[in-house]
Amino acid sequence: MRILIQNCAVLPMTGKDDYITKGYISIKNNRIQALGPMEELKTSGSLAGNLLADFTVIDGSGKVALPGLINTHSHAAMTLFRGYADDMPLMPWLQEKIFPAEARLKAEDVYWGTLLANMEMLRFGTTCFADMYFFMEEVAKAVEISGIRASLSRGLIGIAPNGEEALDEGVQLVKDWEGQAKGRITTRLGPHAPYTCPTEYMKKVIVCSDQLGVGLHMHLAETQGEVQDLVSATGFNPIQWMDNLGAFQRPVLGAHCVHVTPEDIEILSRRSVGVAHNPESNMKLASGVAPVPQMLEKGVIVGLGTDGAASNNNLDLFQEMRSAALLHKVFSGDPTVLPAYQVLEMATWGGARCLGLDHEIGRLKPGYKADIILVDLDKPHLCPKHDLAAHLVYAALASDVHTVLVDGRIVMQAGQFLTMKENEIMHQVEERAQALVEGL
Amino acid sequence: MRILIQNCAVLPMTGKDDYITKGYISIKNNRIQALGPMEELKTSGSLAGNLLADFTVIDGSGKVALPGLINTHSHAAMTLFRGYADDMPLMPWLQEKIFPAEARLKAEDVYWGTLLANMEMLRFGTTCFADMYFFMEEVAKAVEISGIRASLSRGLIGIAPNGEEALDEGVQLVKDWEGQAKGRITTRLGPHAPYTCPTEYMKKVIVCSDQLGVGLHMHLAETQGEVQDLVSATGFNPIQWMDNLGAFQRPVLGAHCVHVTPEDIEILSRRSVGVAHNPESNMKLASGVAPVPQMLEKGVIVGLGTDGAASNNNLDLFQEMRSAALLHKVFSGDPTVLPAYQVLEMATWGGARCLGLDHEIGRLKPGYKADIILVDLDKPHLCPKHDLAAHLVYAALASDVHTVLVDGRIVMQAGQFLTMKENEIMHQVEERAQALVEGL
Repeated sequence: MRILIQNCAVLPMTGKDDYITKGYISIKNNRIQALGPMEELKTSGSLAGNLLADFTVIDGSGKVALPGLINTHSHAAMTLFRGYADDMPLMPWLQEKIFPAEARLKAEDVYWGTLLANMEMLRFGTTCFADMYFFMEEVAKAVEISGIRASLSRGLIGIAPNGEEALDEGVQLVKDWEGQAKGRITTRLGPHAPYTCPTEYMKKVIVCSDQLGVGLHMHLAETQGEVQDLVSATGFNPIQWMDNLGAFQRPVLGAHCVHVTPEDIEILSRRSVGVAHNPESNMKLASGVAPVPQMLEKGVIVGLGTDGAASNNNLDLFQEMRSAALLHKVFSGDPTVLPAYQVLEMATWGGARCLGLDHEIGRLKPGYKADIILVDLDKPHLCPKHDLAAHLVYAALASDVHTVLVDGRIVMQAGQFLTMKENEIMHQVEERAQALVEGL
Repeated sequence: MRILIQNCAVLPMTGKDDYITKGYISIKNNRIQALGPMEELKTSGSLAGNLLADFTVIDGSGKVALPGLINTHSHAAMTLFRGYADDMPLMPWLQEKIFPAEARLKAEDVYWGTLLANMEMLRFGTTCFADMYFFMEEVAKAVEISGIRASLSRGLIGIAPNGEEALDEGVQLVKDWEGQAKGRITTRLGPHAPYTCPTEYMKKVIVCSDQLGVGLHMHLAETQGEVQDLVSATGFNPIQWMDNLGAFQRPVLGAHCVHVTPEDIEILSRRSVGVAHNPESNMKLASGVAPVPQMLEKGVIVGLGTDGAASNNNLDLFQEMRSAALLHKVFSGDPTVLPAYQVLEMATWGGARCLGLDHEIGRLKPGYKADIILVDLDKPHLCPKHDLAAHLVYAALASDVHTVLVDGRIVMQAGQFLTMKENEIMHQVEERAQALVEGL
């Protein structure tokens, strides 16, 4: 299985100067074999002795190729609740709307909701996502079908009546699904948050993660209230507390990290915690503004996430890039923070580092997995072409994504999905979503 | 000329409860004749004795009809500098990049740059824009061709060597173009800002505006620095100073109003100044956050604007709606401020009020001009359909706009422009834009 993408601009995200005006990418099976300027295509041995006729050729004229975007924090099946409850204070939103509706969720709902999310993400150039929810075997099945890449974790709420059962399910998910879907699925344990996982429970999760050899995916310091409560209860804030428990001595993906101190940032940096920054969810729920420029300054690994569709309300990382760049400029009063290229890096390479997958995704280079998107630049709102990185962050729409490859396979082209039936999925979700909220 | 749009949801923006699940809109010449639920189409006399065969019928199945969005502040031709200079401090950005490039602009550049802007705006559901720039007769010509509606003003910088000449041009623009393009063009005088228009000059502009019977379009209190400078020089901030000069005794459209006091907000409300809120430009240039919730609370007229594409970098009011809603939630710490419907109101009815056009645009009702957009809801990211207002503000992309009518004329359908040649315009702008910045 060989694919050749040619005549496109290439932003490999390996460095700001590694930009190719008109280039090619050759793919063998699921990996990038070579890439470079078009004039080197035939002379450099990039075709590796093969005839052009052996390749599926994608003409990238007028488009730019870049690594697929990586969504580092989501609850994919919450697409079912997109637009169901908005503009509400956090607690009534959760307690009166989201929790009662979620309590009705059945395995099949999660399956269809995740398929819809996968479709939306692939349409919008996201080739990998980190998910935390329940009925996770359904999420895994949806990932297998859709062709997307994912890091999956069963959300674990220690204070819930089913805390132990959930941990068993989380462990089983790792055993059953790690490395499945041709290696596209990786897994983690998902202790929901310090304030929902008491010390003994958290310790148990940590032991399990070490036995299984997987990392953790958790919420950290999302709201001021939860931080204050934890400080009152334990004397430590979430970052300090997790560090004291030794949680950060394995790979940890921490979502939000909004309310963190300079000392916390030092810890996150020293422990190589990956931070999933979700600017739009934090804005919409009025959670606050994570000190991302300070984190990046201190070498913290930062990726971008959408969070669930109930608090966003889409799974569009192009909007997330734009919101991140704009929010931190106005919040810091400094228009030079989070320049376009750095934001693109967060959405690609930074995301890969957050998920511990930076040895094979997040950049376009030989040997890396072929997770590639082509963005159509031939649009009024992307004219003229002064600066492609700025265009991608500040002017592009997610719908400008034209072609998406995951693991060397074309999964979306010109708005058409090659792995999923769009109408069936939308119909299933529409019916199920209305039933889930009926009478609530 | 009769058009019937049928089978679509209708959000007329006349009130939150005036939502029609499946309805029709009938149009005669350039005005809305009737609208209502489908079941009333044939019984209520909505077709006014005409046969269905007399109508151009648009099937709106799976779509929602709403008033065209109104962009209350732009410098349309600055599309030429989209992505040319980003992530820079304000003064170097202006002085080293934008001003030198603008100094090279010729009339024809402004013509093509505006055509591109009009194309982008129409593609993204904007049917009317307020513009302030120079070579404004070229802007007017572009508006005439594109079919969009516009409120035009020649930017007047009193401290510039050509201040008097510019005022003459501004007056001439009003004389030549007010009411032209079948009434789609209205005009204003455009004193750039209090800090660029000294007292005597501003007084002259005010006299001219009264003689001509037109309002003003100006920048007000965009940055902290300009406010401080004006206070140092005059003892008054921009709002107070303009009020003292009597400027607000005629229709005024004030762009930005970021750095305003509670007393200023009282003045803006009392004087019915229309505020063009440009959240994304204010964020990108780190100008600050306008106190929009407080303004709305006090009854100030607020619309949304994109500002020029050099500081945005697109002309997409869907993103602007989303950014406005999210920014004010996180900035106030209150997730209930600027709920979806209120934001939609700002982008439609509020915009019309800002431009003094609320007697004929900004809402869908009989007798109003037929400026209507149809948004395609049949998309993964707009599924399921719990709440259409939330979908339009929080989940939709501008590219979901399917059909655009301005003044009763279909100007864009399924991404195709009926009034403009897309390729020619993009080619012209690409060539001109590269030449304008070459060697700078």
